[in-house]
Amino acid sequence: MSEADNTRHAFDRAISLTPSAPNRFTGHTTDAYSNMVGPFGGITAAALLNAVLQHPERIGEPVALTVNFAGPIAAGEFVIEALPVRTNRSTQHWTLQLRQNDMVATTATVFCAMRRETWSEQELPAPEAPAPETLPPLPDIGLHGWTANYDFRFVSGMFNPSRPASEAPASSRSLLWIRDQPQRPLDFPALAALGDSFFPRVFTRRQRFVPAGTVSMTLYFHTDSAQLAEIGSDYLLAEAVANQTRNNYFDQSAHLWSRDGQLLLSSTQIVYFKE
Amino acid sequence: MSEADNTRHAFDRAISLTPSAPNRFTGHTTDAYSNMVGPFGGITAAALLNAVLQHPERIGEPVALTVNFAGPIAAGEFVIEALPVRTNRSTQHWTLQLRQNDMVATTATVFCAMRRETWSEQELPAPEAPAPETLPPLPDIGLHGWTANYDFRFVSGMFNPSRPASEAPASSRSLLWIRDQPQRPLDFPALAALGDSFFPRVFTRRQRFVPAGTVSMTLYFHTDSAQLAEIGSDYLLAEAVANQTRNNYFDQSAHLWSRDGQLLLSSTQIVYFKE
Repeated sequence: MSEADNTRHAFDRAISLTPSAPNRFTGHTTDAYSNMVGPFGGITAAALLNAVLQHPERIGEPVALTVNFAGPIAAGEFVIEALPVRTNRSTQHWTLQLRQNDMVATTATVFCAMRRETWSEQELPAPEAPAPETLPPLPDIGLHGWTANYDFRFVSGMFNPSRPASEAPASSRSLLWIRDQPQRPLDFPALAALGDSFFPRVFTRRQRFVPAGTVSMTLYFHTDSAQLAEIGSDYLLAEAVANQTRNNYFDQSAHLWSRDGQLLLSSTQIVYFKE
Repeated sequence: MSEADNTRHAFDRAISLTPSAPNRFTGHTTDAYSNMVGPFGGITAAALLNAVLQHPERIGEPVALTVNFAGPIAAGEFVIEALPVRTNRSTQHWTLQLRQNDMVATTATVFCAMRRETWSEQELPAPEAPAPETLPPLPDIGLHGWTANYDFRFVSGMFNPSRPASEAPASSRSLLWIRDQPQRPLDFPALAALGDSFFPRVFTRRQRFVPAGTVSMTLYFHTDSAQLAEIGSDYLLAEAVANQTRNNYFDQSAHLWSRDGQLLLSSTQIVYFKE
């Protein structure tokens, strides 16, 4: 690790990529964003998006990102291939693969666009919530590495496996404020990672650990660099719920709003679980 | 068209594929599923899924499908390449491309799995709705080719550009019953197409046509072949709403339930629009 690395935010170190050939980048997992098996999915999503953002042929800003977690990522080096498969006048479609030892661990697609001002309207309002400063931080509930990089302020639907199962809520819904810890100015990779920062809904609903892992995640960005710069390192309001849990898989719908109520991100994922 | 084609449902003709090489299939657009520019996106999604379903190496049933509409599809022949990029013990990840003249028109990813019975719970209930038999069919409102292949029975949020703009609703939400017309037993390709069968939310909200097209769609299947066979050709209850409309793009969340209230499909998409 160079001296410069010591002064960089752990998030920037974790998504750092080195161009190694046309359309190809080399990255490295970091302990700071480790999860039960391999890295936190959100940091993998952020690294994939970062490959597009630093690609010399990229036009526009991210609008959609889908990440498929196809196999475990081992600690160490990985290669990301990012191909601009179709470039139109103001839009661009990308396909990506993350590989280790020539084996595909993750696939992704990214859509970028140059947006213009149009008729606009937000239909999904931010839920009512007390200010984040009035809420306690997450207590130590035996969670894994990556969670230390986020400042969680739960309004409702906290996961706490030390509570008796009889106190499990009737819903998987969680509402919380969240931001990077230590603070870091919000950008597209950070927002992508936040889109995967919810504990598995089956944990929340049943208030216990079960084997679980995201299989596929899709994010829609309703924002731009200028708006993200205005938000800076402020908390985002985040809500997540499962719609259907059936035979090894459940889906999660989640949304993130700025403190002033702007919907910035729609996030959906399908998650494997056992039991 | 062979004699057998005459007796097949237009849907089956439209998603019909001929293997032409390993991992490669040839298909053909059909007039029956045409849209304003190129084919109805739902039929393209169904054809892509069909490539996986008839691939000799496929294991399990579809759980997730993402389709990126990267460029227009011209009337005529197309090639679908379907690659099983990662096969685990009971899961399989696919990447797909639809090409015409070696140009990428559509990309997709599919996730299939062998599911086992687990603890299951549906959190998103079906909305209240009168029986489809009590509702009128869609009147002629000047819509395009593909809509004739569906029997739409709107409960609320119908699109009707002949109404004065002052009668536009305050919400983009639509609730309707829908099924194939003529009737056809439900299967995964048909369910995938139904996941894209909603008029663009900006039409519903503003009650007028504006240039619009789906850029990326993600479907999560909460069902299996046995359940689909039980449903047969019955109506499905369908609900769609836009969460955020901002600067050329809006996202749509949609869900489809069986008549007895089982949530079968979660569908999200991001849609381009102008004005």
